[in-house]
Order: sequence, then structure tokens, then C-alpha cells
Amino acid sequence: MKAIYPGSFDPVTNGHMDIIERAAKVFDEVVVAVAVNLEKEPMFSTEERVDLLEKACRHLANVRVDYFRGLTVNYARKQGSTIVIKGLRAVSDFEFELQQALMNKRLDGSVETMFMMTSAEHLFLSSSMVKQLAEFGASITGLVPPVVEERLLEKIKR
Amino acid sequence: MKAIYPGSFDPVTNGHMDIIERAAKVFDEVVVAVAVNLEKEPMFSTEERVDLLEKACRHLANVRVDYFRGLTVNYARKQGSTIVIKGLRAVSDFEFELQQALMNKRLDGSVETMFMMTSAEHLFLSSSMVKQLAEFGASITGLVPPVVEERLLEKIKR
Amino acid sequence: MKAIYPGSFDPVTNGHMDIIERAAKVFDEVVVAVAVNLEKEPMFSTEERVDLLEKACRHLANVRVDYFRGLTVNYARKQGSTIVIKGLRAVSDFEFELQQALMNKRLDGSVETMFMMTSAEHLFLSSSMVKQLAEFGASITGLVPPVVEERLLEKIKR
Amino acid sequence: MKAIYPGSFDPVTNGHMDIIERAAKVFDEVVVAVAVNLEKEPMFSTEERVDLLEKACRHLANVRVDYFRGLTVNYARKQGSTIVIKGLRAVSDFEFELQQALMNKRLDGSVETMFMMTSAEHLFLSSSMVKQLAEFGASITGLVPPVVEERLLEKIKR
Amino acid sequence: MKAIYPGSFDPVTNGHMDIIERAAKVFDEVVVAVAVNLEKEPMFSTEERVDLLEKACRHLANVRVDYFRGLTVNYARKQGSTIVIKGLRAVSDFEFELQQALMNKRLDGSVETMFMMTSAEHLFLSSSMVKQLAEFGASITGLVPPVVEERLLEKIKR
Amino acid sequence: MKAIYPGSFDPVTNGHMDIIERAAKVFDEVVVAVAVNLEKEPMFSTEERVDLLEKACRHLANVRVDYFRGLTVNYARKQGSTIVIKGLRAVSDFEFELQQALMNKRLDGSVETMFMMTSAEHLFLSSSMVKQLAEFGASITGLVPPVVEERLLEKIKR
Repeated sequence: MKAIYPGSFDPVTNGHMDIIERAAKVFDEVVVAVAVNLEKEPMFSTEERVDLLEKACRHLANVRVDYFRGLTVNYARKQGSTIVIKGLRAVSDFEFELQQALMNKRLDGSVETMFMMTSAEHLFLSSSMVKQLAEFGASITGLVPPVVEERLLEKIKR
Repeated sequence: MKAIYPGSFDPVTNGHMDIIERAAKVFDEVVVAVAVNLEKEPMFSTEERVDLLEKACRHLANVRVDYFRGLTVNYARKQGSTIVIKGLRAVSDFEFELQQALMNKRLDGSVETMFMMTSAEHLFLSSSMVKQLAEFGASITGLVPPVVEERLLEKIKR
Repeated sequence: MKAIYPGSFDPVTNGHMDIIERAAKVFDEVVVAVAVNLEKEPMFSTEERVDLLEKACRHLANVRVDYFRGLTVNYARKQGSTIVIKGLRAVSDFEFELQQALMNKRLDGSVETMFMMTSAEHLFLSSSMVKQLAEFGASITGLVPPVVEERLLEKIKR
Repeated sequence: MKAIYPGSFDPVTNGHMDIIERAAKVFDEVVVAVAVNLEKEPMFSTEERVDLLEKACRHLANVRVDYFRGLTVNYARKQGSTIVIKGLRAVSDFEFELQQALMNKRLDGSVETMFMMTSAEHLFLSSSMVKQLAEFGASITGLVPPVVEERLLEKIKR
Repeated sequence: MKAIYPGSFDPVTNGHMDIIERAAKVFDEVVVAVAVNLEKEPMFSTEERVDLLEKACRHLANVRVDYFRGLTVNYARKQGSTIVIKGLRAVSDFEFELQQALMNKRLDGSVETMFMMTSAEHLFLSSSMVKQLAEFGASITGLVPPVVEERLLEKIKR
Repeated sequence: MKAIYPGSFDPVTNGHMDIIERAAKVFDEVVVAVAVNLEKEPMFSTEERVDLLEKACRHLANVRVDYFRGLTVNYARKQGSTIVIKGLRAVSDFEFELQQALMNKRLDGSVETMFMMTSAEHLFLSSSMVKQLAEFGASITGLVPPVVEERLLEKIKR
């Protein structure tokens, strides 16, 4: 089975990497799909986010990186996949994702959302927290893949 | 991939059946595994619970029913499976299952728990609620498979 | 409109009284209905609980006290009422009551559950907490109506 | 009794309609009141939101549509009503509404907030989700009243 | 021990004052530290917020007011303190603060976050709610220290 | 300042130990107080629980172990302490502890409850989970102090 792991990945963190690596053991193929968000202004462009993900996932033979516009269920269908993967960290995630999953089910009954729990050591980790730490000059080593750390520090220096 | 769907199933409800049917589309094989609980006294014996599940799952070619004692991760390993499926209904479920998943991860890092959201129409449904309704003489049609409805009503008449 | 306020009331607290008094201003008639619980052994018998409620509600002209067995929706229907009142204190209450309300809706679509938020000063208050305090010899003045305080202290002395 | 059902209704969804229809059975009169929000820029103007609600509520004899500025409790008082209705969907709603209800209670002890649970099939539904779906070209049939569907699609085409 | 109580305090409410007064009984010295937030535009400048806090805390001999930029753990370290105080009101606070505390722990294992529960009468109170009430012309007496009430009303009149 | 850390400790886990060690750095003296629970039948007697705690806390010079009957606030007062420490793991803990803290505040306004967040690696850990794991024959090394592991395994063998 092919599964889609959608997200903003602005930028990818080690929490995302943990989900990707675990999903790659469960499914035959995992497509990590950067959602092109028209409203929020991201720190990294779509191209940069795809590039960072590709570099971070190089060691995972059955993981492919892509991007998409619009609804996740439509993208999944185009990819010939019926499985969407989401990570859960906290109760607030849970409620939001429950609503999303119920709506996706209504939009396309054949697409199934599978949730994976974030590992204990990543429960506090989010892309926005990493960016905030970097802006305050705190070390982000161990929170993001090395290539992301490097690129994020460059971006902030400018 | 082979996935394990463990639970008490005392008795199986249409909420469980919904998860089983959806899981059967995602995984090559699904083993519905009745947990033999030594503490709580169930309404249905392990044999009855397995029997009811087998009858209710007859139309699902890649679903098998079994029972087990002890830890879910140990049972999964014996079955040669690394995937455990759990259904999520509410925030209280979420917190309990997050704790279980973190502990299972620690006991056996190779076993992955995948969560599926309960459908909107089953959010209120649980085995204990069905038993309570039946005891109060309310209709349980549509809440459990027909074979369970029949057996539950017999049990309560006695 | 006539509304039903069901509960265990073992015993009635000032948190319950607050809901009863506020509901009595919203609805033409409020029936406070003691649920006869067959499983849990209550501290006060059904008759005692009804008696304490009647004494505590004497000043409320449009409040009547009653008791019932079985499903709340069936009792409401027999009373010619389509409104059930519940108090909400905490997130755990909320989830339980959401499930109950969804099930009641399914059992009888004409019965509507209306929720009222517990006042800030009663958020910590429950019948079981009052009983625990009394057993530990702490003052319960102000937590329950005076008649309940008296009867509860007698019960514990024995 | 007259009850106020305040909200943004930008635009009204079938989740709102479900609450309005159920409230109309409980109370003698229901005033659906569009809150004029000065901060957020709405998709529909106050006049449009009132107009859509009036068309969607035409079949409900005891429902009236209005709009207001400022605090809900002040508006309720001017309307000669002491009852405010709110719908609850999720734990995050619950916490926000608990805070609002405690504050309203403090501002005007005579105004009572009554909560109704959203039906299972509308748990995932919100005005912002409907707008997002429409913008992505997904069908919103069955999620909003037909007149809202029409107007929303016009608005997005422009 | 010296403890840091960080926050936006835009402006300080009686909920904050309650935490400050209780913390001042537990710790030898409490530094109330206004976080200079670069993103959100505050209603009161950093100087005003510090000034209002100083006036409101005049009666507390072991409380000092300060402001800081950057990470709380770095500020605490500079102050020679290893204790950060946070108030908890609701489940949403809890989740956010749990994430912050886990991250702070990772950034500096020697800094400990101690949480205090907000008093029942302040559970509904927040700086933004106070500002909203004042803008709508509602009384804020009793919700903020008198000096804040005065200054807030001046600010809104302009 | 002297602080009380009350609990069942049936038996003490490494999650408890983590809170004790961190609290011992914040307060001058920490009294770990085993609550003698009359209702629930513990696996370890009060004497055993005190003994295990004393052995596990031997390296902490400012930690003392004790036991008590009745209300925590009364015990704290007798000890001449006004600070009670509680660990928070999950939302369900949070709600229960919020209620307890509000009630304790009402019983004795001078006693302050201070909450500490459980470390990420102990979020899944509880005394009952440890006992369940031991009964199922799973390793509990690293989840409890070595002396507890030894005693728990002995207990289960019998």
C-alpha cells in the first residue's frame, strides 16, 4: 500500500522524521507531501521545503517527496493512494484531526486516515517552536535534521 | 502487512465492525484478537466473544479472529505482526491510548500502533452502553451485528 | 415547558441546588428526578435522597422531586417532557455527557438535553467529595444544604 | 421564554440550522443574532449574513433574525431575554464557552447560558471549513442551506 | 529561593495578582518579568506594563518587576534563578505549558517550572477578555488592579 | 520552605523519583507522604511503601518519608508546611488535580499546591502500569528503583 503523509514541513523536524521512518516500515511506499498553503507566509518556499525533505529522507528507499495544492483527499486520489498518515501529539491535535478525518471521510469515503503517536521525546517539538528557538539564538541541534539546521541558521543570519 | 486489532469485544459493536471493515481495506490481513481479561468479569466468555466475532466477520475474507493472554506486543510478535490497530473516539480514549502506545514502544520498539478515528455515527457507542440499553429494555438494533443482538437479548432474559 | 433534571443526588450538593434554582427560572416546571441505580450501593436510599431534595427545594414553587428506574428518555416521555437538564463542570463531564446526549438523541429524537455550566465556586464540588470530606472530619458547611449536612453527619457517626 | 442564539454565521451552516431548529422546539421564541465583529474581516457583510439566515429560517415561525454590537448579555437584556443558547462541538469549544459563561454570569447574573450538543453528523462542520472546501472546489451540498451554497459559490467565482 | 514569573501582562489582571501574591508566600523573592514580544503588537508598551505591575505590587516587599527579551530559561539563568512560575487555568493552558516545560527542560535541565492553579473566581479572566470588556463599555472593576482600570479606560477613550 | 509530596506510592516509580529529586532542589525539605487509603486494597502495605521509599530516597539528604491518614491539608498543617507538590502527566490528571487544589484552597487557604510536569520519558508511567507489566512477565527495569523491582518480583512469584 502507498500512504500519503501531508504537512507544512516549514521546516521538517525530527518529530516529522520519526513519523516518516516509522511509516516507511508499515507501508510499501510513503509520499511526504508538502501542502502549498496560500494564506500563511511560510519561512521556507515550497521548493526549499521539498528540497530539505528530499535531503533528510535520502536514506529511506521507499519514501518520495512531493507537493500539492488543494484538498488532501483529492491529492491522495490522484496519487492512487487511499491512506493518509497524521501524527498526534496532544489533545488539541486530536480534536483538530478528528474533525479533519470526519470531513475527509465525508468528502471521499475510500480515503482512510491513520494516526501515529509522536514519540515521547518529540512531544514538545513543532516547526514553529524550532524557528522561535533559532531566532532567540538557542541551539536546535538534535531537533531537526543537520541539513535543516544549517539552512535555518543561514536564513536567520540574513 | 498483517495487523492486530485487540480488544475486549464484550460484545462486538457496530463501532468495532466499522474499524474492522476499514482496517481490512488497508492491511493484507487483520487478526481481531480478544484479550482475555483476568480481572473484570465479562458478560460473554472468551469463547462466546470469539464466536460472535467470527460470525460477524464472515463476509471479510482477510479477517481472522483469535484470543490472547498477556501483553499485546508479545501477542503481536508471536503472530509475526508489527502493527496494532486501535480506534479513537474521545479525548479520554486519546490520553489512555497515548500512554499505552508510548509504553508498547518502550516494550518493543518494532511494534507500531496505528489509530483510526471512529465514524461520527459511532462516537457514542460502547460495549457497556449497549449492555446497559439492553438491560433497560431499549432497542439495540443497528448498534450491534444481528447475531450479537440475538445472543445479548437471550442472555438478558435468563 | 417542563424540564427533567436527573441525577444520583447521593446526596444533593449546593452545586446541584445552584443548577436547580437557575433551571427553575428558565423553565415553567422542573422535575428533579433521582435515578435508582441498581449497581452502585448509594450512601442514602432512594427515599432518603428524595426526602432531602424535597426539603432542600421547598422554597422553589415550580420544582417537584421524583425518582425513576431505567432510561432517562423513557422517564421524560412518561412525564410529558422533552427537555433534560445536565450540569457541566469539567472536560471529563463534557465528554461523557456528549456521548449520553448523542445516544439519547438516537433513542428518542424528540428529547433535547440542555446543559448548564456549574458556577465557578462549585467547580470542585461533587457528592463523593462531600462524603469524603465528612468522613475525614472536615467541615462541609456551605457545600450542601443545611438539612443534608445534618443527615450526613448523623450517618457518619453511626 | 425568549432565547438568543448569537454567533458570527459567516455563513450559517447546517450545524447552526440544526441548533436553531431544536431550540425553536424548546423555547417560545428564538432570536438568531449576528454578532457584528469589528476585528475579523468577514466573508459576508452583516446585511448578507442576516439575509441568508432569514431565508434559511423562513420555515420556522418562532425564529427571528437580528444583529447586534457589543456584549451578548447587554443585547439579551435589551431584547428582554435572559437565555443565551450556544452549541458545543468539542472540548476546545467547551473550555472557551465555560469561560464566556462564567464571565457573562459575572456581568449579568440574570442571564443564563444554555448549551446544546451538536449532532454527530455536524461535529466536523464549521463556517471556516465550509469556506475552505468551497475555495478548493469541493462540493458543499448538504453542509449549508441551499441559498447559502448558491451565494457562497457566486462569491468565490468573482 | 528566587522565582521568575514571566508573562505578557498586557495588562496585569487580578488573576495574575492572585498568582503573584501566592507565589510571594512560597518563595523568598519573586521577579515578575514582562516578556518583550516582538511579533504581537501589545496595547501597553513594555514600559507601561512594567510601571503598572510595579504600582500593583507595591504592597509586596519580596516582589520585583523586570522585563526581558528572548528565552525565559536564559533570563532565569541571568537572574540566578532556577524556578519559573506559571499559572494554569484550563486544559488548553495545560497542554501548551506542558510543551513549554518539556522544551525548557531540554534547553536547561536546571530550570524547573512550577505551576499554580488559578483561583476559581479568576478561571474566566484573561488580559484579552478585560480589554474586550473595556472596549464594549462594560465595567472591569474587580477584574484588574485599580491603577490598571484607570489607565485602560484612558487608553480606550482616546 | 518545607514541602509535602503526598501519594499512594504503591509502589514508587521512577516517575515519582524524578519529581522527588527535582522538588528536593527547589525546597529546603521535602516530606514524601504515603496516604493510607482505607478503601482501595494496596499491593504493598503502608509499612512496605514507606520502607521502599526510604531506600529509594537514601541519596537525598533533604528528603524524609512519612505516612498519614485523612486530608492532605490537615497533614501539611501538622507538619508546619504550607506547600503541597503534585506531578502532572495528562489532561485527566490536570482536571482531577484542579478540583483537588480548589477544594484544598477552600479547606485551608494557607496551603498552596505547586504542580510539576512529569518528564517526557515518564509520561506513560504509573504504579498500576508497572504492576500490570510485572504480572504479565515483562521487564520493569528502568521503570522503578532497583529495590522496588526486586520486591515487586518477589511479591508476584508468591
